[in-house]
Amino acid sequence: MSHWVSTGVCLTDDERLDWLRLIRSQNVGPRTFRALIDHYGNVRDALAALPQLARRGGASAPGRIWTRAEAEREMAAAQSADVTFVALGEPDYPLRLAMIDDAPPLIALRGELAALARPTVAIVGARNASAAGIKFAERLARELGEAGLVVASGLARGIDAAAHRGSLTTGTVAAIAGGHNSIYPPEHAALADAIAENGVVLSEMPLDHEPRARDFPRRNRLISGLAAGVVVIEAAQRSGSLITARMALEQGREVFAVPGSPLDPRCEGSNNLLKQGAAPVTEAGDVVAALQPIFEQPLQLREPDHPITPSEPKPSREPGDAERDRLVALLGPTPVGIDDLIRLSRLPPAIVRTVLLELELAGRLERHGGGQVSLMCR
Amino acid sequence: MSHWVSTGVCLTDDERLDWLRLIRSQNVGPRTFRALIDHYGNVRDALAALPQLARRGGASAPGRIWTRAEAEREMAAAQSADVTFVALGEPDYPLRLAMIDDAPPLIALRGELAALARPTVAIVGARNASAAGIKFAERLARELGEAGLVVASGLARGIDAAAHRGSLTTGTVAAIAGGHNSIYPPEHAALADAIAENGVVLSEMPLDHEPRARDFPRRNRLISGLAAGVVVIEAAQRSGSLITARMALEQGREVFAVPGSPLDPRCEGSNNLLKQGAAPVTEAGDVVAALQPIFEQPLQLREPDHPITPSEPKPSREPGDAERDRLVALLGPTPVGIDDLIRLSRLPPAIVRTVLLELELAGRLERHGGGQVSLMCR
Repeated sequence: MSHWVSTGVCLTDDERLDWLRLIRSQNVGPRTFRALIDHYGNVRDALAALPQLARRGGASAPGRIWTRAEAEREMAAAQSADVTFVALGEPDYPLRLAMIDDAPPLIALRGELAALARPTVAIVGARNASAAGIKFAERLARELGEAGLVVASGLARGIDAAAHRGSLTTGTVAAIAGGHNSIYPPEHAALADAIAENGVVLSEMPLDHEPRARDFPRRNRLISGLAAGVVVIEAAQRSGSLITARMALEQGREVFAVPGSPLDPRCEGSNNLLKQGAAPVTEAGDVVAALQPIFEQPLQLREPDHPITPSEPKPSREPGDAERDRLVALLGPTPVGIDDLIRLSRLPPAIVRTVLLELELAGRLERHGGGQVSLMCR
Repeated sequence: MSHWVSTGVCLTDDERLDWLRLIRSQNVGPRTFRALIDHYGNVRDALAALPQLARRGGASAPGRIWTRAEAEREMAAAQSADVTFVALGEPDYPLRLAMIDDAPPLIALRGELAALARPTVAIVGARNASAAGIKFAERLARELGEAGLVVASGLARGIDAAAHRGSLTTGTVAAIAGGHNSIYPPEHAALADAIAENGVVLSEMPLDHEPRARDFPRRNRLISGLAAGVVVIEAAQRSGSLITARMALEQGREVFAVPGSPLDPRCEGSNNLLKQGAAPVTEAGDVVAALQPIFEQPLQLREPDHPITPSEPKPSREPGDAERDRLVALLGPTPVGIDDLIRLSRLPPAIVRTVLLELELAGRLERHGGGQVSLMCR
């Protein structure tokens, strides 16, 4: 039911609280959230069904469901921090971000939300960047800003901070891995304030969430998701910037890389991107020329590659134990396509999807991109 | 008559003297040389016809023809300088170089000629290279040498010299713009001697020829012609290295470029090559992987794109004045295809080719790549 991402209608305060409760509940990520809505049609019914689904999926104890009081407290705290929650499908939700298949159902925003409606390009790179890399990132961001683009990045040290600084006056968006009240690195709190003057700081995490290592790769999909293309400057091998580049490719976004000396390990990853076909960038014009035709196309919210489609009849019955067992037997730690599971299990698709939801809410299933799922090791 | 480039038969001493006389004669370049042989079948007859052809082409004075005595003196001087003349089609002539359509009919070689039969890659770049560029060039050349490749370059300061130094022991070829007795830059005379130990110094110019500015672009076609691919390191805009890259493309060779900082003007040209599709190189493996399949293919001497074919009957008569005038009227400073001239003039192809030869030997015609000719301004 992808149409729920493009309704352009605002939620009521009550609905927004329900959305917040659902996405904050245990074992509910953006993909599960979407699957639940597709299954139950609305957030309230999904919330009500959570305990039973988790129990059927084999959870020993019911998963933690965010209470209404907790959601109200977060809303109030957000308000006093000038943070606004915008739901997928609402007018202020960035259209390009809405197109990725694990788009966050709710984003917490601080700043000038109008920036989110403008053409956006991301700049990412090494935290321990060279002086030349930092200088170039700041210049490129300034020139891209002057060309009318909003610059997205991750508020990290090095290249990210330089990209934000270069585009402070023209508009820049920082997607952060923690909550708004837990800016990381802490010394960038003032930079975040400056960004919010003409741009936006964006988080999908609870306000006080302190970012853990695993939150950064997850955040990277937001940086690329916000943008039509990602420019990588000075990325070492196995660096977070390369994760952002990979996510950009998965999301169908352009990937650019700035050439650097082969003698500098900080350029190894970005140079490898060039070898893999990323477009070389030495000046803003390279990026503008490549993205202009993309910005000129009207943004069409496409169906996800593997939609969990609502046109399918809802199961008239709950899955039986034998069906559940058969599906679990087909699953393992290696990701497998939902389509394959339907084919191999010879179960009705609606039953398969319900069992997967149950397993997920029991904390036993992981969803990957491209309609793939795997069983968690435990 | 391309078969004369691949006979694999050695010239007699007399024939070699005739070849030297013809290529050293006024207004005879590699393309005219080929056209003359195609027309007259052998060098001696071509030499004999030169004065008459030039006169008919409108030369006020007969073009200077290298005398037999001059050729003998050059041969003797070459011998005492350990320089050998090898003709196109002889076994020692490098096969890849023989494939370009303006291959020099005679090359003057000093060193270990066996190096010319081995798989070869060229490395070229800035004379005012950075320390990092020079270090990288030397390392890349060493690793390519260790991988079994001969490294060709141009004996210039900076990148070229580093490439030769890195591959001195494994084998390197220097194509020079002047003659063997006029090494440029002079301080590289010792490097040239060292190159000749395991590799070759190659020139198409008279032994004492001091290189002029226009000889360097001409020489660059030899560097790319010797190699299956050209690696460009630190090339500024409008640099000689970019000319070598362009010639490599025209010759159907691979072009590689080493990425560099966009803040360094010395990398502007090489980075632009990347934007135009050159393959990025940060280590020898990148080059080896790309060229290995090419080296594994047997070298096939192909017909030039616009061969002046000998299968055509020789003209049974000389061109008449009216025919000559008609063709000259069709020519101008803008290069035009010989095929177009034949079509537009409605003259027999053999007559057209004879008139073109006459004009050329009179110093009035310039031959370009792709079977194009233009009238010289004067």
